[in-house]
Amino acid sequence: MAKIGFIGLGNMGGPMATNLLKAGHSVKVFDIVDDLTKPLARDGATVAESAAAAVTDVEVLISMLPASVHVESLYLGKSGLLERIDPATLVVDSSTIAPSSAVKVATAASEKGIAMIDAPVSGGVGGAVAGTLTFIVGGSTEAFERARPILADMGKNLFHAGDAGAGQVAKICNNMLLSVLMTGTAEALQLGVSKGLDPAVLSEIMRKSSGGNWALEVYNPWPGVMENVPASRDYEGGFLVDLMIKDLGLAMEAAMEAGTSTPMGSLARNLYLNHRHQGFGRKDFSSIQKMFEAD
Amino acid sequence: MAKIGFIGLGNMGGPMATNLLKAGHSVKVFDIVDDLTKPLARDGATVAESAAAAVTDVEVLISMLPASVHVESLYLGKSGLLERIDPATLVVDSSTIAPSSAVKVATAASEKGIAMIDAPVSGGVGGAVAGTLTFIVGGSTEAFERARPILADMGKNLFHAGDAGAGQVAKICNNMLLSVLMTGTAEALQLGVSKGLDPAVLSEIMRKSSGGNWALEVYNPWPGVMENVPASRDYEGGFLVDLMIKDLGLAMEAAMEAGTSTPMGSLARNLYLNHRHQGFGRKDFSSIQKMFEAD
Amino acid sequence: MAKIGFIGLGNMGGPMATNLLKAGHSVKVFDIVDDLTKPLARDGATVAESAAAAVTDVEVLISMLPASVHVESLYLGKSGLLERIDPATLVVDSSTIAPSSAVKVATAASEKGIAMIDAPVSGGVGGAVAGTLTFIVGGSTEAFERARPILADMGKNLFHAGDAGAGQVAKICNNMLLSVLMTGTAEALQLGVSKGLDPAVLSEIMRKSSGGNWALEVYNPWPGVMENVPASRDYEGGFLVDLMIKDLGLAMEAAMEAGTSTPMGSLARNLYLNHRHQGFGRKDFSSIQKMFEAD
Amino acid sequence: MAKIGFIGLGNMGGPMATNLLKAGHSVKVFDIVDDLTKPLARDGATVAESAAAAVTDVEVLISMLPASVHVESLYLGKSGLLERIDPATLVVDSSTIAPSSAVKVATAASEKGIAMIDAPVSGGVGGAVAGTLTFIVGGSTEAFERARPILADMGKNLFHAGDAGAGQVAKICNNMLLSVLMTGTAEALQLGVSKGLDPAVLSEIMRKSSGGNWALEVYNPWPGVMENVPASRDYEGGFLVDLMIKDLGLAMEAAMEAGTSTPMGSLARNLYLNHRHQGFGRKDFSSIQKMFEAD
Repeated sequence: MAKIGFIGLGNMGGPMATNLLKAGHSVKVFDIVDDLTKPLARDGATVAESAAAAVTDVEVLISMLPASVHVESLYLGKSGLLERIDPATLVVDSSTIAPSSAVKVATAASEKGIAMIDAPVSGGVGGAVAGTLTFIVGGSTEAFERARPILADMGKNLFHAGDAGAGQVAKICNNMLLSVLMTGTAEALQLGVSKGLDPAVLSEIMRKSSGGNWALEVYNPWPGVMENVPASRDYEGGFLVDLMIKDLGLAMEAAMEAGTSTPMGSLARNLYLNHRHQGFGRKDFSSIQKMFEAD
Repeated sequence: MAKIGFIGLGNMGGPMATNLLKAGHSVKVFDIVDDLTKPLARDGATVAESAAAAVTDVEVLISMLPASVHVESLYLGKSGLLERIDPATLVVDSSTIAPSSAVKVATAASEKGIAMIDAPVSGGVGGAVAGTLTFIVGGSTEAFERARPILADMGKNLFHAGDAGAGQVAKICNNMLLSVLMTGTAEALQLGVSKGLDPAVLSEIMRKSSGGNWALEVYNPWPGVMENVPASRDYEGGFLVDLMIKDLGLAMEAAMEAGTSTPMGSLARNLYLNHRHQGFGRKDFSSIQKMFEAD
Repeated sequence: MAKIGFIGLGNMGGPMATNLLKAGHSVKVFDIVDDLTKPLARDGATVAESAAAAVTDVEVLISMLPASVHVESLYLGKSGLLERIDPATLVVDSSTIAPSSAVKVATAASEKGIAMIDAPVSGGVGGAVAGTLTFIVGGSTEAFERARPILADMGKNLFHAGDAGAGQVAKICNNMLLSVLMTGTAEALQLGVSKGLDPAVLSEIMRKSSGGNWALEVYNPWPGVMENVPASRDYEGGFLVDLMIKDLGLAMEAAMEAGTSTPMGSLARNLYLNHRHQGFGRKDFSSIQKMFEAD
Repeated sequence: MAKIGFIGLGNMGGPMATNLLKAGHSVKVFDIVDDLTKPLARDGATVAESAAAAVTDVEVLISMLPASVHVESLYLGKSGLLERIDPATLVVDSSTIAPSSAVKVATAASEKGIAMIDAPVSGGVGGAVAGTLTFIVGGSTEAFERARPILADMGKNLFHAGDAGAGQVAKICNNMLLSVLMTGTAEALQLGVSKGLDPAVLSEIMRKSSGGNWALEVYNPWPGVMENVPASRDYEGGFLVDLMIKDLGLAMEAAMEAGTSTPMGSLARNLYLNHRHQGFGRKDFSSIQKMFEAD
């Protein structure tokens, strides 16, 4: 079992840290919101009084923060953690941030002799609680292998996407594609239903045909077609429209840096912005189905 | 074994009729292009001298024509086949046409007491030859069940989408969604590669994640990622851009009739038109990958 | 002064006929809704008891109907007006319909020796009342010149776009472009305002710069920037979203026939469909500004 | 006459500085590319040996650089010019950069007591040479008024858009709208021509109707409709596709910061990226017409 520092105990980080405790690791936790450490303390975590305290005497440090700015500010600069992390510690940042930020921090870590990987996740709060997250990792093969047993206690699919930053790139590519196929699925279902088809029948036909995709497989956006998906509980829970917009923003930034054309992803992002404007920011992203409702 | 009339022996109809012969049916064939009947005759088909001749003394009549106008002209009007088809004959139109045309012809058939289904296919020329087509059927359950054993000799997946026209609706919904996910997959792959990822690694990550879809599963658009797909033979063969544009046109017409919004499908159609303008009309539709190539 | 038959006395046709009366013409009117003829009768029109009665003993026949289906049904077929119109009569159809319908009717007229032009208008109800409509005419130069003095009593700009159907084509091209520039203007204004600019100042800068367009010139979509435009009266009146969607549908049909790519117009149409779904169908089309409101 | 320092003598800056010399100002110039100073020296400019040297003993300092990174690096940091500019000097940055960069530099200037405006231009190289540029200014009214007589020697339209950064915001809003109306105009023209209209006739009809916009007025994208525009010289010269893509990138960044939806501008940007991929990066942006050419 390992000694692990964990910084960032929000909706995702909290249950991830809990799963590490359950697996028998010794976990030292920190969050700027004091209250978030309490449930972890009850579960056996040591509470660090500062981020700096969370990185001492640990073999692995994991961070799970909202955005690039938080990650850069945590690790970089004169008062950043990279100034005090023991080079023997493996650093795992599971935040979803800009690839360029991930590369910047990983490069700074490397200059200090610290091994660091970017390991953004997919699977949402449900996956974090269940320990079934997908980790998409960027960094050296050695670092990926060192992280593997720890990540395996929080998730079930571990991918090595490439060098530093590659985890972030792969995640935003995936989520851009996800936004496209969810939106496309929603408009295809509405067209079929408006022309008289049963949404469940049409879903099944497309699922088994060349329109088959993850949404039709496990996350159907039409209410009532599948049980236990957000569409069947008024789009509560799941992956919020606000978060999809954030991830699509990262994709657009990456596309602008790379000079690549992303017409479908760009359109999906603008549709999601319109959808948020209609009050769906805190609903699951499959609620885009509502945008296409027949009049 | 059944006595079958078959009208329309093009790239799709030819091999479909051949498979019926192989299955032991007695097949009477007709095409306005004389030469197309010859290989069928060699395989044991009777050649009818006119469309009218092809419908006499058959239990099932199958037609496979290019577009709505041909189907309407074949069946409707004073010289149309519905005037001479025995009501005991089951009529199966496998052409991909406008749902409104399918309904019009099926309604006219019904008024004559003739059972008719629309049964458009997916699976392309390869599926037609291999006998692995997907049939998506609109019509009564009785007619669908009558057709089932015949269709099973030409395809492997048989779906009953609903009443008359529903087969066409389901097919164009599926193909609209297919155009969206292929285009979205292509742009996601290019973004990832432009940011340094390996296309095969990224494909595998997305395939197993929430970006998973039919294209990543069996029809990867990036050259060399999969063997035996059009992308790995310079986009030759497969499902032509020209045909995708035709199907997307049917989807747009249906959406206009229904008053539904299809922003992603509309954009995909316009991108495919631009792509055709670059000379890709006779290439496989996964060649949309070329549109996103990095400069 | 001329003897004129006028069929179709709705929001547009009514005031157009009134203006002909004011100009001193002798006008015989018909509408399937009886009540619509009453105000015209008060203004001096003769009321015809049928469409057929409206075409006898007139030098010019004008029709103003909602859609292609009405125009085809009025003029074509055994009971259609073309069977009874005196070849000396000039026929002017001012309905906005599919170019292919306009060509079909004009061709049928021509076969009877009847001169016919398509003369769709822009300028809305306000322009119809004020007699300041724009007429965009398709047909022979001779017919255009014969119509000119009559049209001039209802409008102020008369364009000859080309042969039969060309009036319809030019109108739908114009309206497609209009939808694009209105939507583009709305999103540019919102972007500027969200970044701190005054909408009036930004409007003025763009109006005088390369972003200059008709919307900024006379129809600003931002409430309060211009007086006497729909945006400054809660988007009441003007050119309804429903009608813009109708015209964009005609544009999409024409683009599909021609095989041309119209990505911007297609997107604008889909955005207008989403906008209608939010309850704006009966509001002026500049209300698309509301779609872009900041959250 | 004023003493002016001018940094950045590229395609735009060079002729701008020349016009200041022609107007009688004393101009001290600097560019990191030595050769660019030579024509200015011939015209009477003093050549500074460094950027630092260009800011001493001048009343106004003007900079014209390619991108945000250059402007920030010129003015900010320990070796930045703001450390050495006399607070009595008015600083005018005419580069087109991100509004956030403009605000950052202007704020830093303000903290040193230096008045600074952002004054990006439109009008292209032609306008720079002719002295007919449009300046869109962000900054205090006082600073704008101080700059006015100098700007008037290089341009003919001067707009005050608002506070620091507002010049950049207004420019990118304008150029985003410009990309939309040019693309929309191009596709409308192609649709009309494919349906049989004469491009010049259609252009004239739309120009005088509600489709009227700057492109139809002075910059028609269809070859041969207007003389002396890029479309009539194989799209040479003018405003390059590459530069439009750059400006649209700034617009997308601003829209992401503001959280506003810009579906039309986003689509136009992606179409321009596709267009560049076809080899049009160094052609005028009205060459987007070629994307819509009929097959």
